[in-house]
Parts: sequence; C-alpha cells; structure tokens
Amino acid sequence: MKKAEDFSEWYNEIVEKANLTDKRYPIKGMNVWTPYGWKIMQAIDSHIRQEFDATNHQEVCFPLLIPEDQFAKEKAHIKGFDSEVFWVTHAGLNPLDVKLLLRPTSETAMYPIFALWVRSHADLPLKTYQIVNTFRYETKQTRAFIRVREIHFFESHTCHADFEDAEKQVREDFDILSILAKKWCLPYKLLKRTDWDKFPGAHYTVGIDTLLPSGRSLQLGSIHQYMENFSRPYDIKYEDEKGEHRYVHQTTFGMSERLVGAVVAVHGDDKGLVLPPDVATNQAVIVPVLAKGETEKVSKAARDLYDELKSSGIRVHLDERDVRPGVKYYDWELKGVPLRLELGKRDIEKDKVTFVRRDTGDKSLRDRKHVVKEVKDTLALIANEMLARASKEMTANTLTVDSLANLPEKMIRTGWCGEESCGHEIETKSDRNIIGTPVDGEHFSGNCVVCGKPTKTPIYLARAM
Amino acid sequence: MKKAEDFSEWYNEIVEKANLTDKRYPIKGMNVWTPYGWKIMQAIDSHIRQEFDATNHQEVCFPLLIPEDQFAKEKAHIKGFDSEVFWVTHAGLNPLDVKLLLRPTSETAMYPIFALWVRSHADLPLKTYQIVNTFRYETKQTRAFIRVREIHFFESHTCHADFEDAEKQVREDFDILSILAKKWCLPYKLLKRTDWDKFPGAHYTVGIDTLLPSGRSLQLGSIHQYMENFSRPYDIKYEDEKGEHRYVHQTTFGMSERLVGAVVAVHGDDKGLVLPPDVATNQAVIVPVLAKGETEKVSKAARDLYDELKSSGIRVHLDERDVRPGVKYYDWELKGVPLRLELGKRDIEKDKVTFVRRDTGDKSLRDRKHVVKEVKDTLALIANEMLARASKEMTANTLTVDSLANLPEKMIRTGWCGEESCGHEIETKSDRNIIGTPVDGEHFSGNCVVCGKPTKTPIYLARAM
Repeated sequence: MKKAEDFSEWYNEIVEKANLTDKRYPIKGMNVWTPYGWKIMQAIDSHIRQEFDATNHQEVCFPLLIPEDQFAKEKAHIKGFDSEVFWVTHAGLNPLDVKLLLRPTSETAMYPIFALWVRSHADLPLKTYQIVNTFRYETKQTRAFIRVREIHFFESHTCHADFEDAEKQVREDFDILSILAKKWCLPYKLLKRTDWDKFPGAHYTVGIDTLLPSGRSLQLGSIHQYMENFSRPYDIKYEDEKGEHRYVHQTTFGMSERLVGAVVAVHGDDKGLVLPPDVATNQAVIVPVLAKGETEKVSKAARDLYDELKSSGIRVHLDERDVRPGVKYYDWELKGVPLRLELGKRDIEKDKVTFVRRDTGDKSLRDRKHVVKEVKDTLALIANEMLARASKEMTANTLTVDSLANLPEKMIRTGWCGEESCGHEIETKSDRNIIGTPVDGEHFSGNCVVCGKPTKTPIYLARAM
Repeated sequence: MKKAEDFSEWYNEIVEKANLTDKRYPIKGMNVWTPYGWKIMQAIDSHIRQEFDATNHQEVCFPLLIPEDQFAKEKAHIKGFDSEVFWVTHAGLNPLDVKLLLRPTSETAMYPIFALWVRSHADLPLKTYQIVNTFRYETKQTRAFIRVREIHFFESHTCHADFEDAEKQVREDFDILSILAKKWCLPYKLLKRTDWDKFPGAHYTVGIDTLLPSGRSLQLGSIHQYMENFSRPYDIKYEDEKGEHRYVHQTTFGMSERLVGAVVAVHGDDKGLVLPPDVATNQAVIVPVLAKGETEKVSKAARDLYDELKSSGIRVHLDERDVRPGVKYYDWELKGVPLRLELGKRDIEKDKVTFVRRDTGDKSLRDRKHVVKEVKDTLALIANEMLARASKEMTANTLTVDSLANLPEKMIRTGWCGEESCGHEIETKSDRNIIGTPVDGEHFSGNCVVCGKPTKTPIYLARAM
C-alpha cells in the first residue's frame, strides 16, 4: 500500500481497508455507506448545513423523480444529460404514461415549483439548498466516492432580481467555500471552465479543483451562473417595483461525496487515512498502556482523562480492548484519528500524557493538568499544518510552461489567447483538458502556447483522477 | 377550517396553509418538502438518531436501486410488493440487462451484504439503521405525509444469534418507541397484526397505531420479527461457539414521514398546527407590543429577552416584522409555535412577560427575572398536557362492544377466538380491519363476537385514515 508508487491502487485499497465503503453491492458504482464512511460524510454535510444556514439559505427536499416533459424544457441541459440518466418506465406491472427519470441534478425538478414560489421582488432573493442522492449512469470506470452512479450530493439553488445580484451570490459562494475548505484542509483553485466544458445550460461555470499527489486534478464541486437560461423555459418571473414582469437570474453550487474521496486522497498516507480534526469521527483516541500490577490504576486514569476531554466537547474515544497497544496504534492509524493519547504508568507518575500526531508521527509529553487546552491547541495546529502541507504540495505540483512538449504529470499552467480553435489544439497537443482560467485574476504575462499571440490570461491543464 | 366538522378536509387544508408541503409537484403523491415541513421532519429524525445511537445501532446508507434477482429471493416478500414498485428499465438510451427497482423497503438491498458482514457469533448482534426515501406506487388516494409515493423513511435492521435475542431486540424497540412517542406527545397502541395482515416475509408484525379525532386509526410504524425467513434465502449465517453454522434471526423497525402527519392530525386545531415543544422549530416566539413613543424601549427589551432565552438553549424567534401584533399572533398560531411571549410597555414596567400557550390559549403574567426557568417549565408542562389530552381522547374514542351492529366511528375493541374464519367475518361484518391484538396483555374476558367461544384476547378494529 504505497501511495507514491501506485496512487490509484493505494486509493482503492485504503477506502476498503479503513472500511469507509463496501463495494460488493451487486450494482456497479453503487456502493454501501458503512457506519464509518457515513459518519465522515455526515460531518461534511453538517459543515455545509452550518454555512448555508448561516447565510440564510433554506433547506428543502424535492422529489427524486422528474417527468420527462419537465426535464426536456431546457435544450442544452437535456442534451448534456440524456445519455446518462436512469429511466423509470413501469410502476407495479404497468407501463407509465409519462416516463420518469432519476434526478442527475435537480434544476428540472425545482424550477417548475420555483415558478410558483417567486411572485414579486419581495420573494427575492430565493436561496435554497438540499442534500440528496443523485444518479448518473457513469460509463467510465467507477471509483469509490470519486466516480459513482449513486452520488450523495449537495446543491444550492438561488433566484435573483438581476445579473448583478446573482453575481453577488457567486461571490458569497466563494466565501462559503473558503470557510468549508479550511475545515477539510483542502487547497483548491477556482477556475472558470471553457465554453465547451461548462455545465449544460449554464452561462458560465466555475470549477473548484484540487490537485492530488499523483499530479492529477480532482474537481471538488462547481458554482454556476445561469443568468436567464433556465428561468425563461421554466417561466420563473417576478413583478418588480414598477409592476413589470422580469425573469429571475439563477445560480447553483454543487458538491458531493467526492469530498470524502478528496480528503482520503489528499491527506492519506501509507499507514491509512489522515483525517482533518473537523472531519474526524474521533478527534483523539486514548490508548492505556497497561503494566502488570498497575492495570487498575492506569485504567482509572484513562477513564478520568476520557471523561474530562469528552465533557469539554472533544470527540474522544477510549480504546479498552483487550489487545496489545501496537494493535490499537495500527487500527487507529488506519482509521486516521488525528491524535493518539498514550497513558502509561510512567506518564501518570510524571503527571503527563503522551501525544502522538497522526499527520506527522510527532511524539511529545504534555502536562496532564492542561490536557484539554493541549488537545485543542494540538488539533488546531494539526489542521493548520495539514492545509499548509497540502497547499505547498499543490504549488509544487503546478508547472508553468511555454511549450507543450514533454509535459510531466503535473497541473500545467500556460498561456491561451482565448480562441476556441487554439483551446482545442492545446487539449489535443497536451493530451490534457483545459480546466479553466483563474477566477481571482492571477498575474500572468505570456503568449498563447499555440498561436503565439500575447495574453494576460493563464489557463490550467490537467488530467482528471 | 373546522377540524370537528370535516377532519379530512381540515387536514388537507392545514398542511398547505401552514406551508409544511407543496403538493403542486407534477407527479401525484410526490410532494415537495418546504423549509418549514423539512425542519419538522429533521427534528423527528434527530430524535430517532439520538435514541438508536444511544442503543448502539450504527447508521448506514444502502443504495436506492435493487436488482430484480436480489429482490425475488424471498417469495412472500416479492409477492407483497411487486404490484407497487417502480422499475428502472433503461439507463441513458439503452435497456438494462437486469431490471432495477426503487427500494420499497431495504431488506433485499441490505441482506446480500449482511451475508458478507456476519461471519461469527462475535459479529452479533448486528444493529443498523438508515434514514432514506422509499418508493411505493400507491394506487389509493394520496394524502400529504400519510399516503405518498416517495416516503421519507426510517428503518432499523438487526441480526441476532437466536430467536430469544431477536425478541430482546423487539422489546428494546418498544422501549425506544416509548421515549420517542413522548417527545411527539403521541399516544399509541402496540398491536400484533393478524397473520393475513403482517409484513410480507415477517414471522410476526407489531403495528404501532394511534387514533385520530375522527375515530380513524393511523399506523405510526411497525416492528417485525423475521426469525429465519430472510436469513435462509439470503444466506446470512454465522459460526457459533461450537463451530456450527447457524442462520441469524432478524428484526426490523420502520417509521416514516407519517409521524409528521400524525403530529399535525392529533394535535392541530381550527387555528392551525399545535407543535409539541420537542418538535417545534421555534419553541417560543417573542412579539413586541409597541406603543407610540416607547418603540425603542420595547424593541430593546424584546431583543434582550431574545438573547437571554437563545443563549439558554431555547429555540426562540423574535418577530420584528412591521405588522400589527394581531397578524403575528395569527401567523404563529397557524405555524403551531407552542409558546408566545408578548412584551409591551406595561409588561416592562411591571417587570413581567405575558405568556400565551398555543395548546390551551391560556394567558398569564410571569416574572421577567425568572423567564428562562418559566419558559422551560411551561414548555415541559405543555408537552405533558398535550400527551395527556391526546391519550384521554384516544381512550374516549375506543369502545368495547359485544355486537358488531351499529358501530360508531371509533376504535372498536371486541372478542375474537383467534380462528381465521371468524376473523374474516368480523372484518366483513364490521366493515373495518382487525388491526390486531394488544402486545402488552390487556385484561379481557369475553366471547368471540362471531362464534361465541369464550376468549381472553381482545382485538381492535378500525378504519384507517
């Protein structure tokens, strides 16, 4: 299980060994969420709920099934999805009059209802989100959390009075993302996709991309400005202050269980998972190191330590299994618990606790007296350093070039004039996709790598995991 | 909107007026969870999670789709469901080799995997649950939360070494239920269903039934003992201490969004919802009663009150809308907020707050100084009295008879010898279903209402909502 040698194999192995998922379900790409994997997903969902609730988004839940005629209203959208949806054609023993599809995403489920909810400017902005499973008939090779056919999915959908208010929403989404990504210790880039790679029906799409140690990119989610592209076919109109009827401008923000995959892929190592403290089901595990004749004393001290940490709000587990400490170390390293607290006879005598960090392996003695503060500080430090290391690695794995010859397996940054024909040629020559132009206006001064025209806009190229 | 006059109409109207659901989705029986309805459902889900986590059940999440061949393994089960499942027959533009169905319940999704998870006696008991949506092609008239085609669903699934351990689980389920029902202020009866009415594949089924003011029964959920009925066809075996391979005994416990319907139907009145304090999104709402020239002072006092209640953990809302207090009273009564706190100039002068209970309409002045305790005590009192009133109503609406002539619209209790033929005749003659025999061994001494044979077992008859 060597991450550096065969990243893809390492990933497949680790999600099973750490028991995050069970891939033996009899439908390809539809996996079972085991208790451990589901807890991690729920932690991530709860972070998302917290930030979207705090910004006055309302959680809703729309039906799974969408009638074919509703789905077909936005032409580019159906064209983008119709080769990958699952169709319900029968109920009981009878064929249905109107075929129903399993949502691949919920625009076409929500927008006929939004047309009823939005009446006047007082109803705007309408800010909603839902966390549901979506379905895509993925024909490429599936991979746990990364490319599956039943996808645990977050999607926010908003309606605004005009383009500028929708743009404000996109910027709010960027702010929300920056808070969330910190909790997950994930570095990312906001990249505006090319026109031929944007979401079907979108005015523009911003991809949220991180980089894996293998040099491949992984899209964590995307944020879309729809303008009036959906509100026109779905007739979502409001009466403005002057009594005029206008179409709303819409945005969406989508993320998925792929975040679990990203956390595994970016942070994990040859010993197993390395979970960010905010994501970890158990932030710390206490391993009593029992010595002959002192068993009772050490056990009691371990239980006291547990009670004190628990009551201070730290998610802590006390491992009292009757196995050697080494077995426990192995298990909790595999599971990615950020901090191991060892407590033995000598620790107790010195009024200390031994701290072992999962991310670095660093071992240190801390005062038992200040243990709550020490644990909290250490968890905060771990989170900061995990993000810093991943960011550094992302930078190191990004290469700016002025020629497409002999590209290494890294994220590639180069110049593009913006012409579609040059874009396609860049993709062909580099055998990579353009994942986009940076949203935050990176400084760049170079030439289009195909036509040589001077340009101030860099593009990023990558192979997807 | 008169509950006593036309209960069915009252129910349909109130779920829409209180904005718990939007029934305008273009598929019959598949409704939209609005923000307010979804919050109530989430509160109920969180109660369920809390109790099942506390009893060492593990939350999992299994795929939605089930291959036809897995579904067909338990004969009684497929016979019970095959007229009401939705079939996925195509993916993208192609027909599927094996048809997939949308889970109507998850036995046939989970049990092939349980066969892999359970190996030895050390793996038992296996206690799991999930909260997912299920799908049934309901052909009867649909009704929000009560009878729908996409059902928000809770299901626990457990595996045990033997029948007795599975029986212990059933009793634990009864205990869990009694805690939950108290939070929802719902009285109920545990009734063992007849053999011809049990869950398809079950050894026995215990229905959890409440009674509505209309005299009709509403099933809140059910608990099943499967014995080896599923473990044999799905091959869920373990090696016991002696090295012998034995089939597990299984149980399940199911509840659904119908709980939201029950809370609405049992507690609501002509003014709207009456939410139990544990279920209510807002447990208390503060309405400042502004007087001319004193606006600022009252507003500030209201905000102070809000801060104090909020920080003590009470879910409180401050209604600062620029509308008359009467409009606010109307709105929050419709929404079912348990406690209204009015704060005006005179209250402030006397250092008081006016409390108005939603359930009784009782109005009283309480000391501002002790407001946190007063609110908490009042909420506890409301919960107790809501349950007591509903229990009293259930008792009053239950009638013991020794003849099936001229039955009123109530829950009927009578004698049954236990013979299936007499049972069917009882159902025909009474034009009601036998909902079952009491699990808790009610005292009864009478005769079978059909054959006259003496019996110690009462049965309950009811029409379902």
